[in-house]
Order: sequence, then C-alpha cells, then structure tokens
Amino acid sequence: MEIAILSSGVLAFLVGIFLAIWVRKQDEGNEKMKKISHAIKEGAMAYLKRQHKTLIPIIAILALILNFAINWIAAITFIFGSFCSALAGFIGMNVTVRANVRVANKAKKGLKKALSLAVKGGSVTGLMVVGLGLSGVTALYLFFGKPEFLVGFGFGASLISLFMRVGGGIYTKAADVGADLVGKVEKGIPEDDPRNPAVIADQVGDNVGDCAGMAADVFESYVVTIIASMLLGISLGVKGIVYPLLICSVGIIASIIGIFSVKLGKDKNIWKALNKGIIIASVFSAIGFFVVTFYLFNSFNLFYASLTGIITTIVISWVTDYYTSREKNPVRQIALASKTGAGTNIITGLAVGMLSTLPSIIIICAAIFISYYFAGVYGISIAATGMLALSGIIVSIDSYGPITDNAGGIAEMSGLPKKVRKVTDALDAVGNTTKAVTKGFAIGSAALAALSVFSVFAETAGVSSFDLMQPSVLVGLFLGGALPFLFSSFCLSAVGRAAFSIIEEVRRQFKKIKGLLEGKARPEYARCVDISTKAALKELILPGILAIVSPLIVGFILGPEALGGLLAGAIITGLLLALFLANAGAAWDNAKKYIEAGVLGGKGSEAHKAAVIGDTVGDPCKDTAGPSLNPLIKVINMVSLLFAGLIAVYSLPVIL
Amino acid sequence: MEIAILSSGVLAFLVGIFLAIWVRKQDEGNEKMKKISHAIKEGAMAYLKRQHKTLIPIIAILALILNFAINWIAAITFIFGSFCSALAGFIGMNVTVRANVRVANKAKKGLKKALSLAVKGGSVTGLMVVGLGLSGVTALYLFFGKPEFLVGFGFGASLISLFMRVGGGIYTKAADVGADLVGKVEKGIPEDDPRNPAVIADQVGDNVGDCAGMAADVFESYVVTIIASMLLGISLGVKGIVYPLLICSVGIIASIIGIFSVKLGKDKNIWKALNKGIIIASVFSAIGFFVVTFYLFNSFNLFYASLTGIITTIVISWVTDYYTSREKNPVRQIALASKTGAGTNIITGLAVGMLSTLPSIIIICAAIFISYYFAGVYGISIAATGMLALSGIIVSIDSYGPITDNAGGIAEMSGLPKKVRKVTDALDAVGNTTKAVTKGFAIGSAALAALSVFSVFAETAGVSSFDLMQPSVLVGLFLGGALPFLFSSFCLSAVGRAAFSIIEEVRRQFKKIKGLLEGKARPEYARCVDISTKAALKELILPGILAIVSPLIVGFILGPEALGGLLAGAIITGLLLALFLANAGAAWDNAKKYIEAGVLGGKGSEAHKAAVIGDTVGDPCKDTAGPSLNPLIKVINMVSLLFAGLIAVYSLPVIL
Repeated sequence: MEIAILSSGVLAFLVGIFLAIWVRKQDEGNEKMKKISHAIKEGAMAYLKRQHKTLIPIIAILALILNFAINWIAAITFIFGSFCSALAGFIGMNVTVRANVRVANKAKKGLKKALSLAVKGGSVTGLMVVGLGLSGVTALYLFFGKPEFLVGFGFGASLISLFMRVGGGIYTKAADVGADLVGKVEKGIPEDDPRNPAVIADQVGDNVGDCAGMAADVFESYVVTIIASMLLGISLGVKGIVYPLLICSVGIIASIIGIFSVKLGKDKNIWKALNKGIIIASVFSAIGFFVVTFYLFNSFNLFYASLTGIITTIVISWVTDYYTSREKNPVRQIALASKTGAGTNIITGLAVGMLSTLPSIIIICAAIFISYYFAGVYGISIAATGMLALSGIIVSIDSYGPITDNAGGIAEMSGLPKKVRKVTDALDAVGNTTKAVTKGFAIGSAALAALSVFSVFAETAGVSSFDLMQPSVLVGLFLGGALPFLFSSFCLSAVGRAAFSIIEEVRRQFKKIKGLLEGKARPEYARCVDISTKAALKELILPGILAIVSPLIVGFILGPEALGGLLAGAIITGLLLALFLANAGAAWDNAKKYIEAGVLGGKGSEAHKAAVIGDTVGDPCKDTAGPSLNPLIKVINMVSLLFAGLIAVYSLPVIL
Repeated sequence: MEIAILSSGVLAFLVGIFLAIWVRKQDEGNEKMKKISHAIKEGAMAYLKRQHKTLIPIIAILALILNFAINWIAAITFIFGSFCSALAGFIGMNVTVRANVRVANKAKKGLKKALSLAVKGGSVTGLMVVGLGLSGVTALYLFFGKPEFLVGFGFGASLISLFMRVGGGIYTKAADVGADLVGKVEKGIPEDDPRNPAVIADQVGDNVGDCAGMAADVFESYVVTIIASMLLGISLGVKGIVYPLLICSVGIIASIIGIFSVKLGKDKNIWKALNKGIIIASVFSAIGFFVVTFYLFNSFNLFYASLTGIITTIVISWVTDYYTSREKNPVRQIALASKTGAGTNIITGLAVGMLSTLPSIIIICAAIFISYYFAGVYGISIAATGMLALSGIIVSIDSYGPITDNAGGIAEMSGLPKKVRKVTDALDAVGNTTKAVTKGFAIGSAALAALSVFSVFAETAGVSSFDLMQPSVLVGLFLGGALPFLFSSFCLSAVGRAAFSIIEEVRRQFKKIKGLLEGKARPEYARCVDISTKAALKELILPGILAIVSPLIVGFILGPEALGGLLAGAIITGLLLALFLANAGAAWDNAKKYIEAGVLGGKGSEAHKAAVIGDTVGDPCKDTAGPSLNPLIKVINMVSLLFAGLIAVYSLPVIL
C-alpha cells in the first residue's frame, strides 16, 4: 500500500513536469513581450536564488545543532524537508514566470484558450506541492519505518515557509507600495506603466509572494499535518499511520481530475469554471475517503472526520467571500465610509476585519467538536488532513492568480491591443477571489494542523495535562498570545522600511534619468529589483531566529507546561490576527476596486482617494503580516516537538 | 478591625465631599463662562441621568433572574453594586463639570493655584471610587459575614462599568469626530470654536468618557479584585479574608496623603508635581503594607506579593509612557512616516501598537510569577489588590484630565486673554500623559483582577483542571479569544454610525442657520448633545446583553470546562487588544501633536494632514473599543462566577 501511495505522489510530480513542458512549448509572443517577461523571470529567479543562498548557512547551523542535540536523523530529515519545500516553490515559480507571457499571447486567441493555459501553468505549482510533499514523507517513512523520525522533515518545511512568507511578503509589498506611491500618486502615471522603474519589481513580487510564498506555506501545512496525524495514529497501529497518507493520495488523484475538468462554459463565467474544478475534486475526494476508510477500518467514524475537513474548506471559503467580496455588504460599507474620508474608511475596515474572525472561529470550533466526537484527537488531525488533501487543486487555482496578474501587466507594458487586454483583465479580476479563498483555506487548515502538532507535543513532552489553573501555563499562554502581535508588528515595519528605500530609488530615477516621464528613456528596472531583494533578505533573519528561539527559551527556562501554554496562546491569537489582517486587507482592496468600478464618484473622486489609503494600509496586512503567522505558529510548534524530549528532562523547573 | 477599615472608606467619602464643597465655593468667572459651563454641565448630567434611566429596567430584570436562579442576596447585592458604581461616577462627574470653569477662572491667578484646584476637583472622583468601593464591600461583609455573598456586588459594578465604557466611549468619540470632521476639516475653524454646533457635545463627552467612564472602570476592578481576593483568602481563615480590605484601607490613607502633597515646585513642571503625589502615595502604601502584613501574618511573603502590585503599576506606566510619549522614538517614527502620507502613518501606528503589547505582557507575567512564588494563587490576587489600592490617587490624577481639557475649551470659547489660555494649555498638555498612565494601570490591573476571578471560578465550578488537551477547553479558548475582537468591532462601527448622525446635524446647522460661520448667530448646541446621547444609548444595549449571554450559552451548552477556556481566552486576547488599541491610539494622537508643535512642516503641512487621519483612526480605538474590553472581561467572569454552581449541575455535557 505504501508503494501505491508513493506512486500517487510521483504521479503528481510527473503530471506537473508534463504540464510544465507543455507550457514551455507555447508561443511567447513578440520581442517586446519576451523582453519584459525575461526581466520578470530573471528578477524572480534571482530573488529565490539569493534567498536560498542566504538560508544555506542558517540551515547548516541548525542541522548541526539538531545533530548534536537530538540525532543525525533529525538533522538529515530537516535538510531534506527544507530542500523539498524550496524545490516545490522553485519549480512552480519557474513555470509561472514563463506562463505569464504565454497567457498574454494566448489571450489573442480568446478567453477560453487563455484560461486553460493559465490554469495549467498554475497547476504545476499545485502538483509540485502535493507531489513532493506526499512522496517525501512516504519515502522517509518507508526508509526509517517510524513516523517519529519525520519531525525534522516538517520542521525544515516550516522554516522555509516562514522565510518565504516573511521575505516574499516584504519583497512584494515594498515593491508594490513603492511603485504606487511615486508612480500613481506623485507622478500620476497608471498602474503597470513601463515608465515606472519599480514596475518589474512589482511583477516579480507577485510571483515571489503569491506563488512561491503560498506554495511553501501550504506545502508546510500539508507535510506537518500528515506527520502529526501519523504520530497520533501510532496508537491505532500501522493502519492509523498509513491512513493519513492514503487520504492525501486520494486527494492527489481527485485534484488531478479537478484540474483537468476546468473548462470555460458557454456563460463565460471564469470563477464558475474554476469553482467547478474545486467541487469535482471535493466530490471525488469524498468518495475516495469513503472507500478507503471502509476498506481500512470497516467503520465510518474516520470518514466523518475527513469529510469534516472537506466541508470546512468549502464553508470557510464562503465566509471569506462574504467579508471580502465587493458584491456583499461589508465591502460596500467600507466603500460608503470612504465618502467621509480615509479615517472612516480605515475604522470601518478594522471593524469588518475584526468581525470576520467570529464566523471562521465558530466553523473551526465546529470542525474540532465534530471530528473529536467521531474519532478523538486523532479525528481532529484527520479533519485537518482531509482539508489539506485538497491542496493540489487549491494551490493550482491560487497560482493562477500571479500568472494572470502578470499577463495583464505584460499586455499593458507591451502595448497589446485593447481586445487582448480585455481578456487578460477578465482573467485577472477573478484572481482576487481565488486569492481570498486560498487564504481562508491556508489559515483554517493551519489552525487545525497546529492543534494536531500541539497534541503530539503534549504526548512527547510527557506532560499529563496543561492546566489553565497553573500559573506557568497561564504565563506561557500570555507570552504565546503576544508573539503573533510582535511578529505582525515586525512585518509591518519591515515593509515600511523596505518601501521607503524603493520610494527613494524611484524618485531618484525620475529625477536623474532625462526623458523618463516622457517615455523617451528606459528606467533601470534591475536596480529596483535589487533593492527589494536586499531589503527583504535583510529583514528576514531576525523573525526567523525569534521564531526558533522563543519556544526554546520558554521551554528550558519556564518548563514544558509553560511551553504548552505558549503554543496554545500563539495558535489562538495567531489564528485571530491572521483572519483579521487577511480579511481586513482584502476588504479594503475590494472597496477600492468597487469604487473604481464607477460607484460613489469612481476613480479620482475624494472617496476613491480615501479608499486608496485604505488599500495601502491593507496591503502589508494581507500580504505580509497575515500570511507570516501561519508558518510562525508551525515553526514554534515543530521546534517544541523536536526539543520536547530534552525540555522534559533539562528544563529549569524540572531540574530545580 | 473591620470597623477601622469601614471608617477609612467613609473617611475617603467624607474628604471627597469636603473637597467637592470647597470646589463649589470657588468663583465661576464671568457670565459668558458660566453659560458655557452650564451647557456642558447640563449635557453631561442629562446624559448620565438618561443612561441610568435606560439601565434601570435591565438591572431590574437581571435582579429578578438572579433572585430566582440563585438567591435574593445575589439580587440585592447586585442592585447595591450597580448603585454604588453609578453613584461614584455621578458625584465625581458632578464635581468635574463644576471644577472646569473654576479652573479656567483660577488660571487668571497663575499656574500654581489653577493646578491645585484642578487636582482637588479630580480627587473627588478618585476618593468616591475608593470610598464607596471599600465601604460598600466592607459593609456587606459585616452584614452577611461571608465573602461568598459579595459576588453580586461585583457583578453590579462590572455591568455598570461596561455600560459606562461603551456608552460613554461612543458618546465622546462620536461628538469628537463629528466636531472635527465638519468643523476643522470642512469649515476650517479651529478646535473648541464656539461657532461649531458640536463643540459642547465634545466637551460633555470628555466628562462622560474620561471621568465617569474611567471612574466606573476602576471602581469595578477595585471591587472585583477585593472580592476575588477575599474569596481566595477563605482558606487562610478570617485573616485571609480581611487582609485585602486592610491593604485597600492603607491605600486610601496613602492616596489622601498623596493628593494633598501635589504642589507645583519652583521648576513649574506640572507632571513632576502630579508624579510626586503618586510616588508619595506608593511609598506610604508600601510602608503600610509592610506593617499590616507583619501584624497579621508574622511573615513577609504576602508583603512581597502586595509590593509586586505597586511596582507593576509604576513599571507599566513607564512602558506606556515610552510607547506613547512624543519625546520618545515610537511616536516620532509615526510622525516621520506621516511624510509619505496617511497610509504609512497608519501602518507605522499599527506596528507600534502591536509591539507595545510585549513589554506589558512580560511585566504582567513577571508579576504573576513573583506573587505566585511567594503566596500561591492568593498571592496573585493580592498583587492585583496592591496595584488597585493606589486607585484613589490614580483616578484623581486621571479626572484632572477632563477638568483641564474643559477649562481650556471654556477659556477658548469665552475669549479669555492669551495669558490665561497659556496656563490652561499648560495644564491640558499634561492631561495626555495622565490619561495614558491611567489606561496602562486600568488594563494591567484588570488582567490581574480577571485572573483572580478566574481562579475563584474554577474552585466554585468544581472543575479540578482546565486541560488544554481537552477539546472543550480549546474550543472555549478559541471562542473566548474571538469575543474581544467582536466587541472591538462593534464599538468601532457604533462610533462610525453615531458620528455620521452628528456630522449630518452639524452640516445641517451650518447650512440652515444664517450667519453661523461668521459668528453672528448661535448654533443649537443642545441638538448635538441630544443626538450623541440617543446614539450612545441605542448602541449600548446589544453589547451588554452579549457580554451577559455568551458565557451562559457556552457554559450551559458546552459545559464548565469550555466556559473556563472562554474566560482564559477572553482575558488573553482582551488584554492584548486593549493594550494594542490604547497604545496605538495614544501614539497616533501624540504624533499629530508632535507635528503640531512645529516639526516636519507643522500645522497645515501634508504630514500634518496625514497625522490628523491617523488620530481620527486612533480616537475610537483608544477611547471606545480599547476601554470597553476591561469591563467586558470582568462581566463575563462575574456572570460565570455567579452561575458556576448552576452550570456545574445543569450544563448539557454534565446532564448527558
């Protein structure tokens, strides 16, 4: 059976490679388009390469520490986990930066063909994530024979994810804010205008953040959840260990079917076409879960748990859509508040973001209760696995976003005819919805995944209960609760600092390069790309170290009970803050777009100016601070899990 | 000994009455000043009266429910608690709205005399809070002989406090935002200009929010902490029950000494003079705690716990000052970020607010650890009591704020000479520091107080442990964590709604009343006061009901373990959000004031405009949403405590 599971992972990988080759065969269009596309590709690849180069010494030092503190297996699996995560993002982004220009070119032949290409391009990332994730875990399990040896793999994936999210998030928003504040606001030139020196950096940022960043994020949740479920499944014997792998195997097949069933209908509704893929994948997954569960356990209890995961994915995406869609009341209220200025726009956005946390929390609580009712703590982790089994299709549809966003930018910059731009605009418009859906998915599954790891931690640390009446647990809970606030604060100010250096550079180029504003001279795109890269890499080290060190400090000085409190506290405020930041940010963005569609005075009105300020505030919230919280929670959980044994023996309260 | 304690409470009450009479004897100044002052007084009193009238039926229904569900004692003490809390705010505000004009008039005679009058006026509120608080609790204890019967008193105080904070907060900010957006932004007239129809409502709001609201808030923390400490002290016998009362008695004497030692030195440094009062009160308290503890217990362990409380007060005020003072780096960074627009101003403010939570959390954690180390769970509640024993002087110095703020407004509106306005401005400038210090104190002590109540709840509910590994506890923790977000969201949107109706009214008056802008006609102040009052009262019912009902729903449906989780979750995110909102708001406010002092282009510059938007966002954060979280946490704790017995027997999981 393990071989069958491994094969499904390899299958996903091979389908991904096949799609990648197919995408590369498509026509890139004219010289101008090629030039722009190559600039984006070079910038994105240069960023990833330099980021990985920066991380290699950190990974090496950590591997050494793991080797001496724990054992060589932890060190090796840790390196392997980092490598797989980085590889998934690398291959995926490699394709998105090639698919973008080809989609722009294909748009000449109409919406249907362009959509198909964009989805196939995005699928490469999705298939790499699940393919490398599942085959990596399964191969290690086959080799070592014990799920206990997989924790290092999960830690490697989490750490790469944290760095990708923080670094990529800072990169993308610094370039975006920098391009907008000087270009749109100061110089009055439109978005994606080739005269703007930061425009390539902005396009690079979309790939680095939304494609590579999201891929690493979901890869990590996927891997960590499988490992936690396997560990919790030990008490049920081999069946309990293999079951989560089997669920993911089913999810891979269902995702491939889903991906290939995305086709534009006669009504030309793009979101409906994408959504059809998700629903088909969900239905096939559910059927597969049913069969697999009955085959293994001769009982349906665990099927209900895994089904809870699928339903949670769907319901959370509805809630996210309600609070962030411009068709719905919350976004329209923010737009309306823009009439009385930026102040009221922002207050309303904060209120909407805060309110949006409650329904998601209730859904997650319901998922916890139902899955626990049917199958105990193992059930909770199986619900998380059921949710993440759909990662293949969800990440594919998410990666569709940066491809079409870039395609629009390339069409704009290379001056393609209006007809073509209408197609790319239509494709791009759906990107906001897919992004919001993926974010809800990523945050919800991350919370369930973290809870599963937390349960494993408790077992490993040998603590019988984490009693809220114990002051050490309470103190841990307080400190853990403050961590996500600290992290968000750090990400927000890092974007500010990095954006500031981009702003200075763009201003400098407009001043120094004669004829730039008139379109007679070319800006130095590469310098902006370079500055963004350096700024992001500089800002990425400190939060990474903080995430690794804080559970160790609390664990060794205050003891395992306090560390348990820290993990729980970080999960709770991390989940709440992530929902708040992501939804508020998306709502501000769409309120602006709603006004731009011609309501309340449209573009250029006072209301629009206020909404632009709201969007500027929301950008680092939704694309830097919010997304970095998922991996943060997971990193501190995995570090705690890895060192649980040591902390149980050597922590100060235990020694004293 | 109980009689001595009661006497100290009565003493505080009598000194307060004596000061109130003394304040009333001072000269009110000329007719114009009297007229303005009377308008403020009438508006403020009308608001309080109507609020209390609205609350009477709610109090009556709740008393009936308590009578049937628990017993008549709970109902009676509940009514008594509500009454004492309302009375403290009522008497206190009665004096501040009279002191304001007298301070403006006294300012003619120089800073020293004006400061002395402002402090004495503010002290009435401070002394009422501790006087009514301590004598109320002690009298009930003498009458019933058992601390178990005091919980209703605490619940009454908490509920009034929640209503005062939410209602007062909405009132004050709706009026403020409404006055500013039309007056300053649209019409270009200065702050406190008598032509602005909302100017009186704005002054009323300062009293309703900062004086009556803060008084009710601290009254509630004071009372609830004493009761929780008495309940936890039962295991130590009568000494354990009386000790917290004795500590507060010492605090009252020390506060009175502190109040009378505030005198302007030769360096004319106002904050130094006020701070001298706090330090003298702290030193006398510490000496008193030392004597009292040794006398009762012949050991110093509990002295260390109570001393921890005093030190926590002082250190938290330093931290608050660092993050919100315009002399320090965080505020200056926000000011600097205003140069690139409102967007960056707000992002930086959010980052500063989030960052500011960590040091406060660490201080509170340290306080928990130290006090627990010396005296267990009882020690934590004694640390909270030690902190709150200083309430007399802290509230006095806080109520100084609205008096001097109003005095400045009255001086401005009645056109007093520049020399006088310079004195009132100097007094008012310190108000921001005193407000920030009090807020840090209120939030910190509220967290420790809530933890004490939580411990009592655990004992009463008969739950041996709240284990984070239990899904019901986790689910409770998630739901409790979301509550403060829900509440903050509600408060922010309520301010938006209320401000909107004020804006419409002010615009209407400028349009309809001829010669208003030219100063030839008088605006209809009373209508704005009336609209603010109605809006605040309308918005206040729903959150109150929600706070009462949510612990009951979770307790009865999900069981006492989930309820414990809910309480812990609400304490943690409540504390974090309160710190974040209060500090971010104060930092935005001071960044604006820093620019207004002439830096970065000063008033009217682009940076200033951006900073004004930041301040508009911060206002409802720091004065409505943030402050309402303290009483929210306490109300759900007290409701849980009152119904703990019933929930332990009749909750669904117990029955099934």
